[in-house]
Amino acid sequence: MAKNNRHKSKKHHYSLPMPGSSPGLVFIDENSLQPKINLHIYNADTYKVEKLNDLKGLVEYTADKKLNYWVEVKGFGSISMFETLSTDWNINKLILEDITRTYQRPKYEEYGDYDFAISRMLYLDIENCLENEQVSFILTNNILFTFQEKYEDCLEAVRQRLMIGKGNIRIGGSSYLMYALMDMIVDAYFSVLSAWGEQLDAIEDRLFEKPDKSIMYDTQLIKRNLITLRRVAWPERDKMNDILRTDSPLIDHQTKMYLRDAYDHCIQIIDMVESLKEISASNIDMYLSIISNRMNEIMKVLTIISSIFIPLTFIAGIYGMNFSREDPVTGKILRQNMPELYQEHGYLYTMIVMAIIAVIQIIYFWRKGWFK
Amino acid sequence: MAKNNRHKSKKHHYSLPMPGSSPGLVFIDENSLQPKINLHIYNADTYKVEKLNDLKGLVEYTADKKLNYWVEVKGFGSISMFETLSTDWNINKLILEDITRTYQRPKYEEYGDYDFAISRMLYLDIENCLENEQVSFILTNNILFTFQEKYEDCLEAVRQRLMIGKGNIRIGGSSYLMYALMDMIVDAYFSVLSAWGEQLDAIEDRLFEKPDKSIMYDTQLIKRNLITLRRVAWPERDKMNDILRTDSPLIDHQTKMYLRDAYDHCIQIIDMVESLKEISASNIDMYLSIISNRMNEIMKVLTIISSIFIPLTFIAGIYGMNFSREDPVTGKILRQNMPELYQEHGYLYTMIVMAIIAVIQIIYFWRKGWFK
Amino acid sequence: MAKNNRHKSKKHHYSLPMPGSSPGLVFIDENSLQPKINLHIYNADTYKVEKLNDLKGLVEYTADKKLNYWVEVKGFGSISMFETLSTDWNINKLILEDITRTYQRPKYEEYGDYDFAISRMLYLDIENCLENEQVSFILTNNILFTFQEKYEDCLEAVRQRLMIGKGNIRIGGSSYLMYALMDMIVDAYFSVLSAWGEQLDAIEDRLFEKPDKSIMYDTQLIKRNLITLRRVAWPERDKMNDILRTDSPLIDHQTKMYLRDAYDHCIQIIDMVESLKEISASNIDMYLSIISNRMNEIMKVLTIISSIFIPLTFIAGIYGMNFSREDPVTGKILRQNMPELYQEHGYLYTMIVMAIIAVIQIIYFWRKGWFK
Amino acid sequence: MAKNNRHKSKKHHYSLPMPGSSPGLVFIDENSLQPKINLHIYNADTYKVEKLNDLKGLVEYTADKKLNYWVEVKGFGSISMFETLSTDWNINKLILEDITRTYQRPKYEEYGDYDFAISRMLYLDIENCLENEQVSFILTNNILFTFQEKYEDCLEAVRQRLMIGKGNIRIGGSSYLMYALMDMIVDAYFSVLSAWGEQLDAIEDRLFEKPDKSIMYDTQLIKRNLITLRRVAWPERDKMNDILRTDSPLIDHQTKMYLRDAYDHCIQIIDMVESLKEISASNIDMYLSIISNRMNEIMKVLTIISSIFIPLTFIAGIYGMNFSREDPVTGKILRQNMPELYQEHGYLYTMIVMAIIAVIQIIYFWRKGWFK
Amino acid sequence: MAKNNRHKSKKHHYSLPMPGSSPGLVFIDENSLQPKINLHIYNADTYKVEKLNDLKGLVEYTADKKLNYWVEVKGFGSISMFETLSTDWNINKLILEDITRTYQRPKYEEYGDYDFAISRMLYLDIENCLENEQVSFILTNNILFTFQEKYEDCLEAVRQRLMIGKGNIRIGGSSYLMYALMDMIVDAYFSVLSAWGEQLDAIEDRLFEKPDKSIMYDTQLIKRNLITLRRVAWPERDKMNDILRTDSPLIDHQTKMYLRDAYDHCIQIIDMVESLKEISASNIDMYLSIISNRMNEIMKVLTIISSIFIPLTFIAGIYGMNFSREDPVTGKILRQNMPELYQEHGYLYTMIVMAIIAVIQIIYFWRKGWFK
Repeated sequence: MAKNNRHKSKKHHYSLPMPGSSPGLVFIDENSLQPKINLHIYNADTYKVEKLNDLKGLVEYTADKKLNYWVEVKGFGSISMFETLSTDWNINKLILEDITRTYQRPKYEEYGDYDFAISRMLYLDIENCLENEQVSFILTNNILFTFQEKYEDCLEAVRQRLMIGKGNIRIGGSSYLMYALMDMIVDAYFSVLSAWGEQLDAIEDRLFEKPDKSIMYDTQLIKRNLITLRRVAWPERDKMNDILRTDSPLIDHQTKMYLRDAYDHCIQIIDMVESLKEISASNIDMYLSIISNRMNEIMKVLTIISSIFIPLTFIAGIYGMNFSREDPVTGKILRQNMPELYQEHGYLYTMIVMAIIAVIQIIYFWRKGWFK
Repeated sequence: MAKNNRHKSKKHHYSLPMPGSSPGLVFIDENSLQPKINLHIYNADTYKVEKLNDLKGLVEYTADKKLNYWVEVKGFGSISMFETLSTDWNINKLILEDITRTYQRPKYEEYGDYDFAISRMLYLDIENCLENEQVSFILTNNILFTFQEKYEDCLEAVRQRLMIGKGNIRIGGSSYLMYALMDMIVDAYFSVLSAWGEQLDAIEDRLFEKPDKSIMYDTQLIKRNLITLRRVAWPERDKMNDILRTDSPLIDHQTKMYLRDAYDHCIQIIDMVESLKEISASNIDMYLSIISNRMNEIMKVLTIISSIFIPLTFIAGIYGMNFSREDPVTGKILRQNMPELYQEHGYLYTMIVMAIIAVIQIIYFWRKGWFK
Repeated sequence: MAKNNRHKSKKHHYSLPMPGSSPGLVFIDENSLQPKINLHIYNADTYKVEKLNDLKGLVEYTADKKLNYWVEVKGFGSISMFETLSTDWNINKLILEDITRTYQRPKYEEYGDYDFAISRMLYLDIENCLENEQVSFILTNNILFTFQEKYEDCLEAVRQRLMIGKGNIRIGGSSYLMYALMDMIVDAYFSVLSAWGEQLDAIEDRLFEKPDKSIMYDTQLIKRNLITLRRVAWPERDKMNDILRTDSPLIDHQTKMYLRDAYDHCIQIIDMVESLKEISASNIDMYLSIISNRMNEIMKVLTIISSIFIPLTFIAGIYGMNFSREDPVTGKILRQNMPELYQEHGYLYTMIVMAIIAVIQIIYFWRKGWFK
Repeated sequence: MAKNNRHKSKKHHYSLPMPGSSPGLVFIDENSLQPKINLHIYNADTYKVEKLNDLKGLVEYTADKKLNYWVEVKGFGSISMFETLSTDWNINKLILEDITRTYQRPKYEEYGDYDFAISRMLYLDIENCLENEQVSFILTNNILFTFQEKYEDCLEAVRQRLMIGKGNIRIGGSSYLMYALMDMIVDAYFSVLSAWGEQLDAIEDRLFEKPDKSIMYDTQLIKRNLITLRRVAWPERDKMNDILRTDSPLIDHQTKMYLRDAYDHCIQIIDMVESLKEISASNIDMYLSIISNRMNEIMKVLTIISSIFIPLTFIAGIYGMNFSREDPVTGKILRQNMPELYQEHGYLYTMIVMAIIAVIQIIYFWRKGWFK
Repeated sequence: MAKNNRHKSKKHHYSLPMPGSSPGLVFIDENSLQPKINLHIYNADTYKVEKLNDLKGLVEYTADKKLNYWVEVKGFGSISMFETLSTDWNINKLILEDITRTYQRPKYEEYGDYDFAISRMLYLDIENCLENEQVSFILTNNILFTFQEKYEDCLEAVRQRLMIGKGNIRIGGSSYLMYALMDMIVDAYFSVLSAWGEQLDAIEDRLFEKPDKSIMYDTQLIKRNLITLRRVAWPERDKMNDILRTDSPLIDHQTKMYLRDAYDHCIQIIDMVESLKEISASNIDMYLSIISNRMNEIMKVLTIISSIFIPLTFIAGIYGMNFSREDPVTGKILRQNMPELYQEHGYLYTMIVMAIIAVIQIIYFWRKGWFK
C-alpha cells in the first residue's frame, strides 16, 4: 500500500510554466477536458440551473440585477471561452493565465470591477490519494465565476444547500456564495487531516504490535502530504485575512463576519497540521529506537550463546587433542601428555568444570540484566 | 501504564465539523449530556444558587441591575436552550456554533452588547489522563454565562470563593468573575505541568537505574501532551492580551490589572512548557546514548571472549587432527606428521603457548580500555 | 556521476574581493572574456541588432527618444568600456564594481537618472551542473544595459520574442524589457527545480530498488544546490518587492502589474525549494533507516546461524574428546570416562538431542519474528 | 559528580501557585525564614546601617528627603511585615503576591508613586549548584526596598561600594542603587557562564582522552542549566529595555545611560548562552560519533580474528574427522577415506595451506584499511 | 592539526568583567602591552606619521581644522592615557571601559561631540588560528581615534592607501577613513571564510578518499569558528545600518553611500556563513552515514564467513566424535555408532555435502547483494 500511495501522490508535481513564454498567455494543454458550464440562477425565492456550451452572450443573459448568478466552469479545453472572458468581461490576461496554470498559491486580488481569488481544493480520492486542485473565483457585483480543471470536486454540499435554499446562501449575495465555497474547501481539509490522524494512530498501533519497514514509508508519506497541506493552508489563511481587511465593495460586510470564522478554521488547520507533524516525527523516533532496541536484543542473544559455548568448546577442543601417551613407533611412554585423559574421573571433572563456567557466565549476564 | 495512557489521551481527537454544513448551525450530538443550569445570584452582601431547567424567562428574572448573575450551563443536550439564547438574548449564531463545536482555540471577541470568550480547560482526571475541555464565556453588563460540555471541571475553588465572599470576587463585577474563572483555568495548567515535571524526573531516575523501552514511550507521551498544552497556551496568551487592550466597556478597568497578572502566568506557562520539552528531548537523547553504550558493552563482551578463545580453539583443533604417524594399512612410518604429539612435553608446551596468547590479548584489550 | 557533479558544482565559489582594495574599483580579471556588445534598436514597428566593438559614441547614437535600445554586454575584458560608462553615462563607480565583482546578491537601487538592478541567472549546463551567473541591469528612460560575464545564457527566448515582436515586449518600454528578462531568469529557476525534483524522484525509486551509498551523495548534492537556489530566491523576491513599491519614474506603471506576477513566481520558487528540501531530508532519513534495517537483517542471519550451530558444535566437541576407556600404558579400565561412546545407540541419541536443540532454537527465533 | 549535581539542580522546580487561590494573596510558607531587615541610610557624605525588626514606623523614620534609604529585606516569615507594606506604603497586593511567590520572570512595572521590578539572581553555590533566587525591588523617590527569600546572595560587592562610597553609588540616587544591584546580578551571570564554559572545555578534553558515559550526563546538565539561564536572560533584557524607555520620573536620566550598558550586558549574556549551547551540542555530537567509531573498532577486531581463525579451525576440524582407513570390525581397507592423513608431508602441507589462507585474509583486511 | 587548532582557538574566551566592580572603571590588565601611538596627519596634499608617547597636549597639536588626524593607539598598558582622554577630550567613562574590556559586540553610539563605534577584527594568524580582536573608534570632526589591544592587525592595506593617497581616502574626511577601516575589517571576514571554505572542500575530499575521525573534529572546529563569525557579523550589520540611518553630522553624506556597500558585504558574509554551516552539517551527515555503511560492510564480512564455516565446522565436528564401533574393553561390536566413518566413500560424500552447503549459502548472500 505504502509504495502505491507514494507513487500516486506524486503525479502532476512538476507541470511548470514554459520558461520564456510571454506572460499573460492562456495555456491550454492538449489533454484538457472539454468545459462543462453550469449557470446557477437564484435569488431568495427562485433557483434554477442551466447547462451552457460556452460563455458567449452571457453578458446580456445575466443582466438582471435582481438575480444572482453562479457560472460554474469545469474543464479548460476551449481557448475561445477564455477569449470571451477577455473581450466580453474585460478580464485581465494575467488572471486568465493564473486560472489555466493550475499551480498557483491561494491569493486574493482586487481589479476594480471584479475581484479575483484562488483556493486550493485538497481531498482524498476514492483510492485515498491526495487530490490537489485549483479553484479560481472571479467575483463581480451579482455574478460569481468559478473555474476548475477537472469534473470531480468536493463542493456538492454547497450546491445542495443552494438548491434547498436554507440559511443565508441564497440571500447573502455572490460574496456569501464565494465564502460558502471557500469555507467548504477549508472544511475538506479537516476531513483530510482527520483521515491522516487515524492513519497515524493505526501506524502507532502497528509500532507496538509489529514494527516493520512500512512504518517508515507510511509515516514519511503522511509527513509529506502534511507539508503539502501546510503549504496550502498558510497562504489560504493570508488570503482570508486579505479579504477580511479589504475595502472592496464587492465583499459584503456581513460576509466578512463569516469569513472571520473561516479564518479561524485556517488557523485551526495549521495548528492540527503542526500537531500531526509532531506525531509523525514522534512515530519515526519511536520506530528508530525500536530498531535500535531490537538490534540490542539480537546482539544479546548472539553474545550470550557465543560467550557461553565458545569457551566450553575450547575446553572440549583441548581434550580432543591427540597428544599421545606413547609413541606408536618407538613405544616410548610419554606420561606428561594429557594425563587427565587417563584419570578415573577425568571426564566427570571436565564436565563439572564446564558446567561451572557456564553457570558463572549466566549469573554474570543475569546481573547485567540481559535476560530481561 | 505507558500504553494505557497513550490510548486514553487520544480519545476525542478528531471530532471535526461536518464539511459542507451551513455555518452558524448549532450542532447537538446525540450523546450530549442533558444541560444542568446553575444560576448564581450575588452581590457584595448576598449570595444564592438556583437550579434551572432551561433559560426561558431568564431575561426578566435577571433584570435587577444591582445584582450580578452567573449562569453556569453544563451539558449541551437541549437545542431549545440555544434557541432561547438566540431569540431572547440575541446571541449571534456563529457564537452558538463555536460554543457547541468544542474544538475552538481560546479567543476573545466583542459584539457590542456582549463579549464572547473561549478558554480551554486542561486538567488531569483521576486516571492521570489529560482532559481538554472548552469553556465558553458570554459576558454582558451584569450577567456572565459559562458553557461546558461535561459536568466535571476544575472550577470548584472559584465557586467556593464566590460562596464565602472573600476578596474581590463578589464586588468586582461580572468581568472580575470571568477573570477569576480564566485565571483558575490557567492555574490548572500549572498543576498539570507540575505533574508532568515530576513524571519526567521519575523517568530521568529510571534512566540511571534501569533504562528500558518504556522510557521512550512515556517521554514521547509527555512530549505530545506538552505540545497540546502549548497549542492551548499560545492563543490563551493572545486572548489575555486582546482583553487587556480592548476598549470594551464590559471589561472593568480594575479587572485589567488582574488580567495583566494572568497574562504573566500564561507567559510563565509557555516558558515552563518549553523547559519541559527540552528536558524531554534531553531524556530521549540520554536514552538513545544509553542504548548505544549498552550495544558497545555487549559487543565488547562478545569480542573479548571470541577473540581470546577462537584462536585457542584453532590451536586445539590443529592438535586434534588425525595425521597419522604410521599408515595403519601399509605400516609405513610417517615421521613428519605431527611430531609434536609425540614429544615428551608437547602437551605442556602447547598449553603454555595458549596461555601466552590469551594473556597478550587480555593485555591488548586492557590497554584499549575495554574492561572499564 | 555523483562525484563528478559535486566537483563541478563547486567551481568559482570563492572568488572574493581583495581585502583592502579601494572601494569602487573596477576589477578585471586577466581571464575575462573580450566583450561582445549587441545593440538592439526597436520600437513597435522596427527591430534591428547591431554588433558594437565598444561603447564609445553610444550617447549620440541612442539619442532618438522614439526608439528603445537594449545594449547587451557579454564579457568584461575591456577596462575602457567601463571608463566610457563612467564618463559618458555618469554611472557611479560602486555600480561598476558591483557589475564586475559577480558575487552580488539580487538587488535594486535607484540613482535618479538611472536605476540599477542585479539578477542571478541559475541554469543547468549541458553537463547538468548548476551555473550561477550574475546579470546586471542599468535602466534609463529608453535604454536598457545588461551585463553578463560569459557568453552563454538562458535568455534566448526573450531575444526571439523581441525579434518577432509579439505581445507587449516591443511596446512596453525599457522597463518592460527588463521585467521580461528578469521573469525569464526566474522562470529558469522552475526548470532547474523541475530537474532536481525528477532527480529526487529517481533517487527515491533507487531507495526502494537498490539503496547504496550514492543515494546519500546525490541527495546531499541536490540539497546543497537547493540551498544555493534559496539563497538567490529570497533576495530576488525582495528585489521584486522593491521594484513594485518604488516611485522611480523609470518603472512603468503597467510593468508593475506584470512584476506582481513575477513576485508571485518568486514566492512559488521559495515554496518549491522548501518542499524539495523536505523531500531530500525525507530521502536521507529513509536511507538511514534502510541502513539500520539492513544491519538488523545481517545481524539476524549471523545470530541465527551462530546460535544454532555453536551449541551443536560444542556437543560434537564433547564427544570428540579423547578421555580414554583404558590407560594404554597400564591397561587400567576407566569405565567412567565417556561411557556414552560405547553405548549401542550413543551416536543416534546424540544426533537426536542435537536435532531437538536446533528445532527449539528455530521455534524461538520464529516466534521472535526473525525469519520475516 | 554528574549525578549529584543533577539532583541538586532540580530542587524548588515546581513550587507553583495553589490553583484557585484568590489573586493578591500573600503566601507565607511555614518554612519561610524570619525576616532580617537592614536599613542603609546614606548620602554623599554619610553612611550607616541599622538592623530593624519590622517595618513599622518606617514611614516617619525615612522622612528626611535629603537622605537616601535602602531597606533590605531577607526572609519572608512575617505576614505582618507585608501588611505594613500594604497599609503604610500603599503597595498593591498583587505586588506583594509577586514578591512572595518567588517564581516570577524578570519584569518592570510602574504604579505611579512607586515602581516595581523583579530580577532573578543566578549564582553557583559552594557545591557548584545553580542557585536561582528572586530579588524584588520597590523604588520610590528616595527609598529602595529589596526583597530576597534567603539570607545568602551575591550582592556583597555592592554593599562594600556603598560603604566605601566610591563612584556614583552614593550620589546617583535610589534609581542608581537599583541599577547597581541589577547590574551586579547580571554580572554574576557572566561568572556562572564562565564556570560552565570551563566545565565544557574540561569535558571536551575528556572527549579526546577518555570518553565515557559521564560526558553525556555532564553536558546535558550544563545544557539544561544554560536553558534556565536563557529563560532568565531574555526577560531580563526586556526588563532593562522597559526601564530604558519608561517615562517614570523615578528613574534618573543619568542612570539610564548606565542601564544601556547593562542592557548590552544582557545581550552579551544571551550571545554567550547561545554559543555555549552550540558547544554543548557539538560535544554531544562528537561523543556520539566517538561511540560509533569505537563500535566500528570493536567490530573490526572481532571480524578480523573470527574471519581468520574460523576457516582455519574448519580445516583443522576436517582432519580431525575420524573417517577410518580400515573398518576395525571387518578389517576392510577403505583407501578413499582421508588419504591425506597418511601422506608423508600431509601435516606440513596442511599447515602451509592454512598459513596462505591467513596471509590472504590479512592482506585483504589491510587493503581495506582495517588495521589503521 | 585538528587538536592543535582546537586548543589555540579557545584562548581568551572567558576574560569577563569582575562582577561587582564599579561601572565606568577602566580596566588595565597587568599583562597589557605598552601603548604605541601613531599620529597620522594628512589632507589631500600632505601626509606624515609621528610616533607619540602619550596623548598629552594632543588637543593643541591637532587644532588645525584644515588637516585630518588619525590617532592610532595600540596597547592599553597606560592608565594615564585613558585619564587624558577623559579630562582633555571629555570622553565618557563608560566608553573608556568598553574600549578596555575587549569583549564588546560591534555597536555605534552617538555622544554629541563625538561618535563611538566598535568593530571586531577577525583574521587567521600565521598558525591558521582565528584571532578575534576589538577595534574601537572615536570619531570627532576631523580626528579619528582607533584603539587596539595588540600590535598585530590586518589594516596595513588602509595605511598604504592613506600614504599613497589614491582614491577618496585622503579627501573623504575622518568618517571616510573610519569607513575604510571598517570595510577593511569586514573584507577580512571574506578571507577567513574563503580559507574555511577551502578547508571544508579539503575535508570533503578526504570524506571520499579516507574518512577518519579527524573529519569530525576538523568540521566541528570550523563549525564553531563559523558560529563565532556569525555572532560578530550580525551586530556588525546592525551597526552599519545604525550608521547609515543616523543623523549625526560627523558622518559624511557621501560616506554613507559607501557604507551601504559595506552593509551589503555584511549581508553577504552572513549568507556565506549560513552556506558554509550547511556544508559543515552536510559533511558531518555524510561522515556519519559513511561510518554506518562501513559498519554494515564489516558485519557483512563477519556474517558471510561465520555463516559459511560455522555449519561446516559443525559437520566436521560430528565426524570428529569418538563414538566407538567396538567397545575396547568388552570387544562388543557397536554397528550403529557412526557407520558413515566406515563407508567406502564416506569422506568424499561428506566433503561434497559441505561444498553444497557452502555454495547454497554463497548464492543466498549473493542474491541479497552482500557481495557488492
